[in-house]
Amino acid sequence: MKTAHRITALKALLDEAGIDILIVTNLLNIRYLTGFTGSAGTLLIPSSSRSADDFGLLFTDGRYREQAALQIDESDAQVAIQIGSARKQFEQSVLFARGSSIIAIEADSTSLALFNQWSEAMEQTIVPSTVKIEVLRRFKDETEVSQLRTACQIADTALSRVLPKLSDEPTENEFATELDYQMRMLGAEGPSFETIVASGANSSMPHARPTDKKIVEGDAVVIDFGATWNGYHSDCTRTYFLGSTPSDKFERIYSAVEQSQIAGVSKTLLEMEISSIDKACRDSLAGHQLAEFFTHSTGHGVGLEVHELPWVHSESNSSLALGDVVTVEPGVYLPGELGVRIEDTIAITQAGSECLTIISKSPLIS
Amino acid sequence: MKTAHRITALKALLDEAGIDILIVTNLLNIRYLTGFTGSAGTLLIPSSSRSADDFGLLFTDGRYREQAALQIDESDAQVAIQIGSARKQFEQSVLFARGSSIIAIEADSTSLALFNQWSEAMEQTIVPSTVKIEVLRRFKDETEVSQLRTACQIADTALSRVLPKLSDEPTENEFATELDYQMRMLGAEGPSFETIVASGANSSMPHARPTDKKIVEGDAVVIDFGATWNGYHSDCTRTYFLGSTPSDKFERIYSAVEQSQIAGVSKTLLEMEISSIDKACRDSLAGHQLAEFFTHSTGHGVGLEVHELPWVHSESNSSLALGDVVTVEPGVYLPGELGVRIEDTIAITQAGSECLTIISKSPLIS
Repeated sequence: MKTAHRITALKALLDEAGIDILIVTNLLNIRYLTGFTGSAGTLLIPSSSRSADDFGLLFTDGRYREQAALQIDESDAQVAIQIGSARKQFEQSVLFARGSSIIAIEADSTSLALFNQWSEAMEQTIVPSTVKIEVLRRFKDETEVSQLRTACQIADTALSRVLPKLSDEPTENEFATELDYQMRMLGAEGPSFETIVASGANSSMPHARPTDKKIVEGDAVVIDFGATWNGYHSDCTRTYFLGSTPSDKFERIYSAVEQSQIAGVSKTLLEMEISSIDKACRDSLAGHQLAEFFTHSTGHGVGLEVHELPWVHSESNSSLALGDVVTVEPGVYLPGELGVRIEDTIAITQAGSECLTIISKSPLIS
Repeated sequence: MKTAHRITALKALLDEAGIDILIVTNLLNIRYLTGFTGSAGTLLIPSSSRSADDFGLLFTDGRYREQAALQIDESDAQVAIQIGSARKQFEQSVLFARGSSIIAIEADSTSLALFNQWSEAMEQTIVPSTVKIEVLRRFKDETEVSQLRTACQIADTALSRVLPKLSDEPTENEFATELDYQMRMLGAEGPSFETIVASGANSSMPHARPTDKKIVEGDAVVIDFGATWNGYHSDCTRTYFLGSTPSDKFERIYSAVEQSQIAGVSKTLLEMEISSIDKACRDSLAGHQLAEFFTHSTGHGVGLEVHELPWVHSESNSSLALGDVVTVEPGVYLPGELGVRIEDTIAITQAGSECLTIISKSPLIS
């Protein structure tokens, strides 16, 4: 995988922030910067001003010797691989950091215990990093959009395969298990998160976990699910009604959420303010006197994490840019009674805005 | 769930260590101490000397209001539940800690970023805790052994259901997916870890991940898997040979590993030194000139984590005690050729040593 451009961008950010070396401990950030997917590793990245062609160092242990060599093109990524114990890693890091003064470490992914070890080992004081690699990860390149597209396709196909089983009245747990099974059989590493299958009154809880309740005729069923493909996550929600004649209330709520979601998606355009997506969804629901029942945020970025930058809410002061991939997921929840949520994932690409989750939104299953 | 005895034990440890208040951030430790399973929470526990009947404080957010009330018997656990924002949590903690001088925090599960927030919020200096709740978690009570027994039974049953499918020559990925599916259908929350199905030459890699390689006649197949039940993990490995006439080499290696594993299990007795389990396994393999091919450690404790205290290796200076639940899992790996591993989970109970993983070890599948 070509990752040189990502490391170059990071080196420039470090330079601006006055950081000479960044210690990267978040494994997803290491994967993003180098392509390495091992479960143990630490990456040292020097700023561009230290020396434009100074290589970074990736430390990992003997289990990953072959894998690291296979996954990282050292000259492309400008990263040298070092295999060894934690002690060797600290010794090498001391040498590497000679002549540098500001050493920063990722503060969210470094435990206090590990921070204390680094502080003891190094000659310099180590500070929490003000540079966030997550900010770079927000803007996906074409390879990443392609991975996300595949993840979404797998999830769509899996749901379309298991949807007919809804009429067999499975339990929520059984249906979630079938859906996860199909995603894996289609090549996914696993679900993106714990699949939500919430039926009847359970659908009114936005974060419901599947239970042993049977899904029966007359139930609304919220299905919020995703597949992981090469580390990239999909995220999609559909709401169904089991039976041929939905209640008036279901029809009214469903139609309002559908309009709200379309209103939000219509704002997922290059350079549009992100807060306007949130506003469009909420204004639309307000038109049906349902705004108060939309009790969570409107969306989020999707990538190596299922929830990442940018956050789609009213206080965002950012605009959509090339490479943003965001969800739009308004919902209405009537406590103890009924919930409806519809969610798509949209990528902002050179060719325009692309909805990656394309399974039908037709809600009736009989 | 009755957890008062766990909190009482912790309070005494804090007292011995001279810690007035421990800030618990590890969610598994919070679950262990209180029964609360939410995905966000912080627990403050005062030492027994501060005041024998001082309640602890569990902070969590609004999503978990009902769940926390349902899961925690406040008077039994001696923990008061407080719902609110991070800011409110810090304000309440300052009040709670008035008059205390030594405040410690769990160093492995607290990020540098969170530690800095706590340090800013509190009047006292916060230090990394020298008391490890993981040490208490090592010794399971009867309820916990019962959860582990169920987890092992689910895994056993699932494997016995899918084993006949081996002769259909599925891919490693397909077989792993079927096994995970059956565990969930039997009520597991999920697999205990990423299921290992390693066939043919792949079996020689102890940590192989399932691939799209077909499992074919003449293959050895290592299956290392477990189920999670109420948060408790099972862990079991079986090795099979697909075909009616195993190679001489497979028979020789399998028989050696089997003897080694039996030798190790025979040492899983109350008060036995843990290092002697390791020694028994390695000595047995040495008798077949195979010791050098056993390249990982012999076992580990199992509980709320699939790998936890006690570690079963030659340098252990601990002995088995009531409530220990450990794996015994010797293996022999001939690089690029063949691997065999056999693993059971054994509980040290009042009634004696109980093997929780009881699925047959007969290796031939045809």
